[in-house]
Amino acid sequence: MCPGCGVVHYQNPRMVVGCIIEEQGNLLLCKRAIQPRHGYWTVPAGFLELGESTVQGAVRETWEEAGARVQVIAPYAHFDIPYIGQAYIFYRARMLSAEYSAGTESLEVKWVPPAQIPWDALAFQVVRVSLEMFVQDQQSGQYRTHHGIISRDAEGRYTLEEHLALPLSHR
Amino acid sequence: MCPGCGVVHYQNPRMVVGCIIEEQGNLLLCKRAIQPRHGYWTVPAGFLELGESTVQGAVRETWEEAGARVQVIAPYAHFDIPYIGQAYIFYRARMLSAEYSAGTESLEVKWVPPAQIPWDALAFQVVRVSLEMFVQDQQSGQYRTHHGIISRDAEGRYTLEEHLALPLSHR
Repeated sequence: MCPGCGVVHYQNPRMVVGCIIEEQGNLLLCKRAIQPRHGYWTVPAGFLELGESTVQGAVRETWEEAGARVQVIAPYAHFDIPYIGQAYIFYRARMLSAEYSAGTESLEVKWVPPAQIPWDALAFQVVRVSLEMFVQDQQSGQYRTHHGIISRDAEGRYTLEEHLALPLSHR
Repeated sequence: MCPGCGVVHYQNPRMVVGCIIEEQGNLLLCKRAIQPRHGYWTVPAGFLELGESTVQGAVRETWEEAGARVQVIAPYAHFDIPYIGQAYIFYRARMLSAEYSAGTESLEVKWVPPAQIPWDALAFQVVRVSLEMFVQDQQSGQYRTHHGIISRDAEGRYTLEEHLALPLSHR
């Protein structure tokens, strides 16, 4: 409903697009400078905008939040999160140059080895799930593409229903 | 901008979710009873709604438009269509019972063998692209999962940039 006049506008779930960027095994993470979850860690991601593809949106968000120019390698994950009306779409990406820096929405951006991922200080459950899968895929040496639903029950427990985890050779 | 009062509301691309339903090689198609593209053929699909996953939305649209209860087998395609601010997400599905019927948004629903797909009377370019891929996959005996962008140039020509076509064994 419009807060200005009360007219009802139709609302649909929104896509959040982002990149999981890997160099020599390390992942590029951002510490959030904005609410919600100020001060917590995430991968660069944000709302898809009109006129751009999900790849373009993921690349733009990475530039805005992490000051990094990246190239998408392949789709990595699609997670529906019905209880917040969002679908997260992550791409696997590589750096096009070595430069990165904290954008206005980040307090800090840094390379993190898998063993030092701040699991207790990640911003969102979908980031945790995606990074857990990514680290598993790194260890197995085979990147997959993932598709599923993240739910939360009345006690605040999360569940992941995975529809698909397709093997995908590294490229 | 709200037509009621002029307040600006943020708009994001929307997800359209649907099913490609196959039985004994035939595909379940719907003839549209609504605009745009009234009288043209499509697979059951529509806007994802708040509170549902993309799988749930695809199953609901199939029930509403084709009167069919289906079970999703696997993700089939994700196509970004930036020039209309939409992302189409199709699942491969099977019938849970033999019943189907035209819903209020369909003039007719019927099983169509691949050789009789009405290519000149399909409602949307994304439906054409998806059915072309599906028929190819049927012929090769190997279902893939597809990911790409559909663009349209100033002359109205469509292009498809495919990021990924992963082999997916039939299941």
